[in-house]
Amino acid sequence: MPRRMVDEVAAMKLQSLVASAPSWLSGDDDAVGIVISCRARLARNVSTYPFGAKITEDEQAQVVASVLAAAKGCKHISAATFYNLELLDKNERRLLVERHLISPNLADAKGQRGVLFNSDESLSVMINEEDHLRIQAISPGLQAAAAWGKVNALDDELGLKLECAFSEDLGFLTACPTNTGTGLRLSVLMHLPALVLTQDMERVLQGLSQMSFTVRGVYGEGTNAAGNLFQVSNQSTLGQSEQEIVDGLLEVARKLVEYERDGQETLLAEARSQVEDKVWRALGLLSNARVLSSQEFMNLLSAVRLGLSLDLISGLPSRFVNQLMIVTQPAHLQAEAGQRLEPDERDSRRATIVRRKLEEADAHGGGAA
Amino acid sequence: MPRRMVDEVAAMKLQSLVASAPSWLSGDDDAVGIVISCRARLARNVSTYPFGAKITEDEQAQVVASVLAAAKGCKHISAATFYNLELLDKNERRLLVERHLISPNLADAKGQRGVLFNSDESLSVMINEEDHLRIQAISPGLQAAAAWGKVNALDDELGLKLECAFSEDLGFLTACPTNTGTGLRLSVLMHLPALVLTQDMERVLQGLSQMSFTVRGVYGEGTNAAGNLFQVSNQSTLGQSEQEIVDGLLEVARKLVEYERDGQETLLAEARSQVEDKVWRALGLLSNARVLSSQEFMNLLSAVRLGLSLDLISGLPSRFVNQLMIVTQPAHLQAEAGQRLEPDERDSRRATIVRRKLEEADAHGGGAA
Repeated sequence: MPRRMVDEVAAMKLQSLVASAPSWLSGDDDAVGIVISCRARLARNVSTYPFGAKITEDEQAQVVASVLAAAKGCKHISAATFYNLELLDKNERRLLVERHLISPNLADAKGQRGVLFNSDESLSVMINEEDHLRIQAISPGLQAAAAWGKVNALDDELGLKLECAFSEDLGFLTACPTNTGTGLRLSVLMHLPALVLTQDMERVLQGLSQMSFTVRGVYGEGTNAAGNLFQVSNQSTLGQSEQEIVDGLLEVARKLVEYERDGQETLLAEARSQVEDKVWRALGLLSNARVLSSQEFMNLLSAVRLGLSLDLISGLPSRFVNQLMIVTQPAHLQAEAGQRLEPDERDSRRATIVRRKLEEADAHGGGAA
Repeated sequence: MPRRMVDEVAAMKLQSLVASAPSWLSGDDDAVGIVISCRARLARNVSTYPFGAKITEDEQAQVVASVLAAAKGCKHISAATFYNLELLDKNERRLLVERHLISPNLADAKGQRGVLFNSDESLSVMINEEDHLRIQAISPGLQAAAAWGKVNALDDELGLKLECAFSEDLGFLTACPTNTGTGLRLSVLMHLPALVLTQDMERVLQGLSQMSFTVRGVYGEGTNAAGNLFQVSNQSTLGQSEQEIVDGLLEVARKLVEYERDGQETLLAEARSQVEDKVWRALGLLSNARVLSSQEFMNLLSAVRLGLSLDLISGLPSRFVNQLMIVTQPAHLQAEAGQRLEPDERDSRRATIVRRKLEEADAHGGGAA
């Protein structure tokens, strides 16, 4: 099949993504609405090509070809589709970013680069991001071990066909020294509204930083993260085994779940009617607003998540809430509309989609009314 | 029947008011949701007793007895119930204020005083407020002429039995000179959200003041009136016939309806999605909030009224919205609960009642969902 045709097939598949949600947003094992997902990623480089900025476009193309050839024989990713980022338009690239399939860096970079991912979006390989390969797995809830298992299995398969840059002293070599060693970055996406509301988040952030974990707001900065969503990841990739990284992050994540649950229960005990009011108002606004900015939407959705965690509302599965978070992002709204939208058009379309989805959920016996 | 027993019957009837709405809130003839009601009141004094501060409590009791005796034979008010304000508790007095049956002054005064009103609350007589008699009629919508007709008819009947203080030069004499002459104060209760939103209200207020009309916010001061509700009344009671007062006020009210409609249509033309958003958010919050302050409630209800005026929502009759405004006031909430409520308990009860009423309205085929 000529290459261009392959890419057209890929583009059609890409469009079809818009209507569905990635498997890692299933809400399984989500620790009462607090843990959304876990991600593991490995940084690898093919030893025969230069890393990072020194690589030429020709060499990049050779890296892409080598990785695709190697992937073809790997059972963990043999059915995956490859997307050549040079052939995608800006909105298609943003769509992949919004689904956490590629990094903003890969989307905005120049040169031969792409991403290969399974249809359920649980496993992907970015090619020619900062490193030649970024192998990534995302699992729902607290399944960090499963995510690590997936990237590890694919890495083992690829390692049989690609010679990766490795030093006996340092471990895997990477474009940036912060990834050298295991090349493993593990992160947990968490919803921590009570820690933010009770103003304990600042203290938690400091403690985690001292323990060599990084926490950042997923949408926004520091403790002002829109939607109270935070990503907690390991800082160091050197001096710890992969299993130690997995165990360490899981321990921290479970601790955070405990703090957050305590915080939520305290809130409920001390200010039940205000918490109920906040949750129901959020649901009322999401079900009725005609204009919703992305920031307001994320904050209202956070209140609904809190209501679900606290069993104040029912009938809206975590999967539903997670999916809403994905399909209301700008590139998804534009893909669904089939055209570029001005910010105010997006806000109005976002409100329409949220309303429609909540009506559907309610019509199927949800407790949103 | 001994007097105390009569008063107990009256108190029971008073309690039963809580569940119903006054007839003047029927929403009839309400000029597309802009005019809520018209009120006419006549100030009269019995010539044989002192006016105002000079009257003794014994004389007050005699005035009450004379008025009740005279009223007994008047067909317009013969079936009315008399409420002796000395025998009502504070909440019962506030209940009458909230229903516009008595003034705050009458509620808070000392001495022998009371109110007599028909079961549909369209016609009432306050006894020993500032003047011996304040005859008041309230009609729904723009029926100012009907309200005037009612107070005039009752005044004619009472005038056959009570000798009212009257001067050939000045007309009817009153405790305060601002009421001397016709003794007629006519007012229109209007909902003017577009004039407030477009910041034209300040200019309108100045114009009306120059034309000798008084405008005041019904809940709150000046243009910051909660719920965008304004009462427009004639300032002068001297030098104009009653018919001129009625015609003058109706002319001004119709002009204001026109300005307000223009304002509403401009808003819709220039910012349709923001207006729709405001209206639907208000309905979403009213249907879902667990805590509603009186001020927030009035402002949200105003947005719903605007939505009804503009046909953006349907299925909620003006009568329903008007009734909601009455039953959510503090004394009504306390009467319904059968006990004194702290402010935060009132806010929570208010939210519950609003939610329940909106659910009922919706269940009966309203367009609130």
